Amino acid sequence: MRLVPILLGLAALSAALLSAAPGHEATLSRIAAEALARGPAYDQLRDLLARHPGRLGGSEALAGAVRWSEARLQALQLDRVWLQEVMVPHWERGHPESVQLMVPGAAPVRLAAAALGGSVATPAEGLTAPVIEVDSLEDLMARGEAQVAGKVVFLNRPMDPADPDPGRAYGKAVDQRSRGPRAAASLGAVAALVRSMTQARDDVPHTGGTAYLPDGRNIPAAALSAVAADRLSAALKDQPDLKIEIKIHARWHPEAVSHNVIGEIRGTEKPGEIIVVGAHLDSWDITPGAHDDGAGVVQAIEVLRIYRALGLQPRHTIRCVLFTNEENGLRGGKAYAAHVQATGERHVFAVESDGGGFAPRGFSLGQRDGPVHERARRWLPLLEPLGILAFTEGRGGADIGPLLPLGVPLGNLLVDDQRYFDLHHTVADTIDQVHPRELHLGAAALASLVWLVDQEGL
Amino acid sequence: MRLVPILLGLAALSAALLSAAPGHEATLSRIAAEALARGPAYDQLRDLLARHPGRLGGSEALAGAVRWSEARLQALQLDRVWLQEVMVPHWERGHPESVQLMVPGAAPVRLAAAALGGSVATPAEGLTAPVIEVDSLEDLMARGEAQVAGKVVFLNRPMDPADPDPGRAYGKAVDQRSRGPRAAASLGAVAALVRSMTQARDDVPHTGGTAYLPDGRNIPAAALSAVAADRLSAALKDQPDLKIEIKIHARWHPEAVSHNVIGEIRGTEKPGEIIVVGAHLDSWDITPGAHDDGAGVVQAIEVLRIYRALGLQPRHTIRCVLFTNEENGLRGGKAYAAHVQATGERHVFAVESDGGGFAPRGFSLGQRDGPVHERARRWLPLLEPLGILAFTEGRGGADIGPLLPLGVPLGNLLVDDQRYFDLHHTVADTIDQVHPRELHLGAAALASLVWLVDQEGL
Repeated sequence: MRLVPILLGLAALSAALLSAAPGHEATLSRIAAEALARGPAYDQLRDLLARHPGRLGGSEALAGAVRWSEARLQALQLDRVWLQEVMVPHWERGHPESVQLMVPGAAPVRLAAAALGGSVATPAEGLTAPVIEVDSLEDLMARGEAQVAGKVVFLNRPMDPADPDPGRAYGKAVDQRSRGPRAAASLGAVAALVRSMTQARDDVPHTGGTAYLPDGRNIPAAALSAVAADRLSAALKDQPDLKIEIKIHARWHPEAVSHNVIGEIRGTEKPGEIIVVGAHLDSWDITPGAHDDGAGVVQAIEVLRIYRALGLQPRHTIRCVLFTNEENGLRGGKAYAAHVQATGERHVFAVESDGGGFAPRGFSLGQRDGPVHERARRWLPLLEPLGILAFTEGRGGADIGPLLPLGVPLGNLLVDDQRYFDLHHTVADTIDQVHPRELHLGAAALASLVWLVDQEGL
Repeated sequence: MRLVPILLGLAALSAALLSAAPGHEATLSRIAAEALARGPAYDQLRDLLARHPGRLGGSEALAGAVRWSEARLQALQLDRVWLQEVMVPHWERGHPESVQLMVPGAAPVRLAAAALGGSVATPAEGLTAPVIEVDSLEDLMARGEAQVAGKVVFLNRPMDPADPDPGRAYGKAVDQRSRGPRAAASLGAVAALVRSMTQARDDVPHTGGTAYLPDGRNIPAAALSAVAADRLSAALKDQPDLKIEIKIHARWHPEAVSHNVIGEIRGTEKPGEIIVVGAHLDSWDITPGAHDDGAGVVQAIEVLRIYRALGLQPRHTIRCVLFTNEENGLRGGKAYAAHVQATGERHVFAVESDGGGFAPRGFSLGQRDGPVHERARRWLPLLEPLGILAFTEGRGGADIGPLLPLGVPLGNLLVDDQRYFDLHHTVADTIDQVHPRELHLGAAALASLVWLVDQEGL
């Protein structure tokens, strides 16, 4: 992701720019004040996380969150609130997993671990085998079946600590988690352990999805915390024959019914044209999902609340979509896009918040530079008080991504993300990690961009 | 502070821009990797705060921090390290202050409070008087001596919670702290209590300086936490005759000797021309000063360490200046500027980090838009990986501000500051509030801008 923000002379330019968008400054100021001084988003987030933590597909928590969101939207007296049925994968972790280093003549050493989403189970009594450590997928494949078969593969490549962009570092590293176990299985490994996807050096394991070939032999897979990975690596250097015992009790179930939760305020001039502001309602099972993506959920709801609280009348229909099943299936996003294609509903713009409730700093606009960006950047002086410093290219949100082939311009709220991957997919993604003002600023930024797109077009 | 960042077509423009600064991308990448993967800044900050918390002018802690910084710079094998003597005000808080609400027929209610910097003492046994609450300085002056004389003035205007820009909100509100007690004294008040300068709603009082007229009658003054202020205000609504008991044991002492700590790498082409990267070494007495400004101190040192670690040879002299006495006197900044004026040393640029060790998002360049900004914005594509999205106008740093009349272009590292004013001047500004990667990114951003200014000119 690259961008080219350019500073131009205020005296000369801003007058011209602001005259291109008369009256918006006052509205955006009201939006910010409403969000910051009266916004309930933080309290609502605390409530959501307390009532429905671990909102994974098929869980009671996700079903509860659907009802919770529906009730929040209904309380806003919108023009319409409805649920869109979506079939979602249903996997359960079961009893807590354990990974232990078996030290001859001493007590086993517990390693902090979390089974990967979709992992199959070990035998109930556990699986014990020697370990082979590799530093990449290429390294793994190069070792071949001769070295790997019958062993636990330990993929220990870290997210690049020298990369200043955690999202980019994640993108470059995550294949270790998503494809590593499958590759290990193809070489006859009996299980896979992967170093967690984080630049932090703590003892918190990060779960996440892993892919299985339908015709492949699936093996149990878990992520180790950074500390556990370092410990295992050090132990193996001393004693390469050490064995690991893994117990994972996960199970797949038949697909379950879930829902996208949708609320909208009908437009006064073009009610058939939709602006979507969205987030995903589900989370991994081991986490309350404060930043991923509870924050986005309450922010998206807050956008509609602000419209109602300030009596703002949109020209287009403003629709809040809370997508289900982003974490392990993307079924919600796909179902929504399928609905749009089937109905032919014209969408003017879709923006989501799925980077966490941290301080906003920009928006990505999914399309390459062109007329969309050119029109949007006129608005930067108006958005700057909220911390929005630039529009960037690319990185659309996962849930709205399926709308791209339908020609819908997509946006994503960009936040400071140095902390995000410390918490991502872990037990530590909790309410105390969210700063109320940062959260409310993000909501104000979303509401402001929605307002500008609605009033000026994109 | 306003800005106008504009997005332009990457394909067309960035190639042209990058070709204007060949080779820098590789160097900046090395700088970032060095800071992120090998930077000791966070560990050094923890060490500084553990050894020398509460580094106020005249304190042992400040003297220790001067020695600590000198040793850190000397360890880098720079071309020169020296101390610049500066006389600084010396005020001590003494025994912990107390502010209590005297409730007839019940136990006194303790209100969380911190004496303001420079406050005079109450009598040792305390001062007890009725309270008059005002919501602004204008409100205070309008009440006049008839209503104020003999009372404790309680200035309860909060920092505007609806302002998305905490720095701006602080700027608009801080006169309550810096001028409120003096105004109250002029009307015959016996003491002043001010609501703390924060948008948070917690029970942590924020200290800070307050001004005294040399010929005014000085009164004891303290800041109440937001919670304490709300409690006092509620109590006064019920019982307007309630009395407050204040005990402050602060004392002024003769001025003390302190030092700016300076280290430099001599330039190869223009050694007589200086680029300053700075921060302030002192802090308020009640705080370890992690973000204010320990983070800046270790970042400024880190810039020079990176130069040495990577074998970078600057064309100009790069000078790290750790200023003393920013918090209650600005004597360090003034002494340094006086030195520059007296010696005629030509300064190409001065930048400081005094916004906290949060994730970097931009730089201010002190001068109005003109050739300086135009040249600088060519560098934005290179700085963007570090999170630097824009150059803005204004808001030079306090310590380097005295260089402005000497015609030196000034810059300030801009960070996400929603959290800064929660911690500013409080006991809560501690190491655990600093995120290592954010801190190191800030150091990399400073080093990168210094490199570009050195190589390309400003």
